[in-house]
Amino acid sequence: MTSPKETQAGSIEHNNSGLGYDDEKDKMDEREAILGLAAKAKNASRMLAQSTIGVRNKTIFYFLEALQDHKAEILAANKKDRDTANPKDPLTKRLAFDDSKLAVVLDGLKALVAMDDPLGKIDLARELDQDLNLYRVTCPIGVVAVIFEARPDALPQIASLCIKSANAIILKGGKEALETNKVLFACLQEALHKAELPADCAHLLTTRTAVDALLCADKYVDLVIPRGSNSLVTYVQDNTRIPVLGHAEGICHIYIDKSADGEKAKRVCIDAKTNYPAACNSLETLLIHKDIAPGLIIDIIAGLRTRGVEVKADPVISAVCAAKSISVLPADESDWSTEYCDLTLSIKSVDNVDEAIDHINAYGSGHTDGIMCENEEIWKHFFTGVNSAGVFRNASTRFADGFRYGFGAEVGISTNKMHPRGPVGIEGLVTYKYKLEGIGQTVEDYASGQKSFTHKEIGND
Amino acid sequence: MTSPKETQAGSIEHNNSGLGYDDEKDKMDEREAILGLAAKAKNASRMLAQSTIGVRNKTIFYFLEALQDHKAEILAANKKDRDTANPKDPLTKRLAFDDSKLAVVLDGLKALVAMDDPLGKIDLARELDQDLNLYRVTCPIGVVAVIFEARPDALPQIASLCIKSANAIILKGGKEALETNKVLFACLQEALHKAELPADCAHLLTTRTAVDALLCADKYVDLVIPRGSNSLVTYVQDNTRIPVLGHAEGICHIYIDKSADGEKAKRVCIDAKTNYPAACNSLETLLIHKDIAPGLIIDIIAGLRTRGVEVKADPVISAVCAAKSISVLPADESDWSTEYCDLTLSIKSVDNVDEAIDHINAYGSGHTDGIMCENEEIWKHFFTGVNSAGVFRNASTRFADGFRYGFGAEVGISTNKMHPRGPVGIEGLVTYKYKLEGIGQTVEDYASGQKSFTHKEIGND
Repeated sequence: MTSPKETQAGSIEHNNSGLGYDDEKDKMDEREAILGLAAKAKNASRMLAQSTIGVRNKTIFYFLEALQDHKAEILAANKKDRDTANPKDPLTKRLAFDDSKLAVVLDGLKALVAMDDPLGKIDLARELDQDLNLYRVTCPIGVVAVIFEARPDALPQIASLCIKSANAIILKGGKEALETNKVLFACLQEALHKAELPADCAHLLTTRTAVDALLCADKYVDLVIPRGSNSLVTYVQDNTRIPVLGHAEGICHIYIDKSADGEKAKRVCIDAKTNYPAACNSLETLLIHKDIAPGLIIDIIAGLRTRGVEVKADPVISAVCAAKSISVLPADESDWSTEYCDLTLSIKSVDNVDEAIDHINAYGSGHTDGIMCENEEIWKHFFTGVNSAGVFRNASTRFADGFRYGFGAEVGISTNKMHPRGPVGIEGLVTYKYKLEGIGQTVEDYASGQKSFTHKEIGND
Repeated sequence: MTSPKETQAGSIEHNNSGLGYDDEKDKMDEREAILGLAAKAKNASRMLAQSTIGVRNKTIFYFLEALQDHKAEILAANKKDRDTANPKDPLTKRLAFDDSKLAVVLDGLKALVAMDDPLGKIDLARELDQDLNLYRVTCPIGVVAVIFEARPDALPQIASLCIKSANAIILKGGKEALETNKVLFACLQEALHKAELPADCAHLLTTRTAVDALLCADKYVDLVIPRGSNSLVTYVQDNTRIPVLGHAEGICHIYIDKSADGEKAKRVCIDAKTNYPAACNSLETLLIHKDIAPGLIIDIIAGLRTRGVEVKADPVISAVCAAKSISVLPADESDWSTEYCDLTLSIKSVDNVDEAIDHINAYGSGHTDGIMCENEEIWKHFFTGVNSAGVFRNASTRFADGFRYGFGAEVGISTNKMHPRGPVGIEGLVTYKYKLEGIGQTVEDYASGQKSFTHKEIGND
């Protein structure tokens, strides 16, 4: 594969993609460079916003083709990354980009091409007065910066979502995946070039110091999405004025109500804790109604322990276990606010659904919380009382995921209460603008009472 | 009118409403107190979220009754505020709360009672698999803090919007309106008490130092809305991790395309600049296509000058004026990014719609920008190229307003690109949560391929 510099002399000239700034350059220089690059992305974002869905779909299709054409280079670059990586680093595991990962990426791109254009959707159409019509219409956000760690398959997924939604993108990958990311990014540039979109629609940054400069570019960057550890997300949140999409913690709960079906409760809790313990939507704290039969509690705990789960329990649950000669670790106050990301589960007895709601609201992270319950009044009370992005009844918290929700790909999961919230697919990458169309109307006529508004919904006659 | 303390001994006990902290108390004490109060508001917000629309409407109705019953006290308190105020301070003008202001407030409350419940609206209903259904449903944000200056009529408007949308509210009014705000707030407390909602649903802060403490309460406060000067908004944006709804600047443009209807253009530009020059949706910069006839340019400028507008123009427009012996001030670079909030207008000649779009994107504030144009291809290009919260064709920028959009009341105008954007009514005070309802499903069954998702839209069979 030839590098973008060779194939696209003209259009790629201004693109600082993949630039690893030399140590001798000072930070101010880097900041200027990143600001310049962000400004170019902003300019390019206007062309993207004005492109047709045909052009954007074609770009994704060319990207798919380039990834297939350059498969050997991708795998070779990935091998280089893995050879350099520290095998003791837990991130190393996630570095691999092999045939099966590539197949998943290609399937995702195909599905994305097939999706409707997320732009131009009208969700409010109102006649304000005769010949004065207001429309609220989805449009791109502008420039989206994504900071991701390790997993190089995130690059094509996120970049293609941004192309589809007509957002320019600034990517900052982890240094562990540098070689792989460079080749993947070159494929993206090849696609932009073929589709005659500006190379500045996408940039790749590769240095850690570039992140700080990027977080200062609030004049040009409209949204930053950190995908990685809690500490990365918290760092980004604390160091930028740019809106941040993401979540630092996923402390998910399940409350087993006394009306619960025991068999369902056991099955769901085991899945939520053990299906993929490192995921943000895994169960961290189980709340159990005080009237639940000790037999069921023991059954659930035994099922968890068989799958290697270490249980930390409050005194009530510990006593139930002790009566059956099962020893569990004691949970202390800090356990209720710990995201274990591992095969550890804290369990607490609660008096009723209100105590469960209060516990979740006090210690939870607003990600996803579930109730096992067959009583409609109780689960409805739980659904209005818990204000998390996901509130589940009789289903595993692990379902909180863009693919499982049917969104296709996902850029992240948001615990923000302003839009977007929960798993964010393509729809979270658009915003809306109000379009008003008139024939020369002035406010003065309405303020003076000469004219008055009709405020009729269009199409609702 | 009796104070809430006297009428509501039980429920008002914990409410630090209206508390002006003594100078001798140190900031740490105040911070603790505000955190405690915010925590109580958070707790109360759960009760509000679980209240019926009947209870919330009743509360607004009781509030309306209390405002009528205590009219004399409100007007007397307002007189006290106005007597204390510095008549030279421009804010003093906006302090007045008289019969006509009260009437507007009462009309607003009545309209709000008549509006649909903004909660529980489902905008996505999807079967993920048989007996596994996903719903995205609107729900309250939680605790909303509003910092407003001078105008005391903002208090009942904002508080009632929050009650309708089931958000607890922390109000911080300007010290100039202290007495008026206290009485208005007591009316609100009376309404909450009658409706048997917790007094902690609403708090009033009155000291400047309380703002800093409030901005640190990101654990409890979900949204902060600064309503006031640019410097207030910028201060809030720079000093909190809480999401901020609002806008610091309103640099609105109108571009007169060569296809424009001259008569419409003149009428709209005069309205946009002179109808209320201090408003954020007023015109600040006029962009004129280079092929527009000098006669029309002179006609528009003469119309503006008749209404007291001072014009600052670029060399091209200045030359057109000079040819007709009209002298205008020269505009310099800084004029393009100045929000005059006054009877001053900058005017610039541009070569085409693309130069207009680039100018707006470079110098605008993303608030509202219009085009005067009769050519569909050109205005559509403008509408996709300008990514402001409002893009208008042939209508005054002054229409960018919640009332004029038919939203009833308005909490502010947002230039954020994430939801909400533009004038924000009740709809911007709700978010959504994902509700998933199953019968005990586990992710493992889907991950292993034993089951597969149907991803059917519900009701689309």
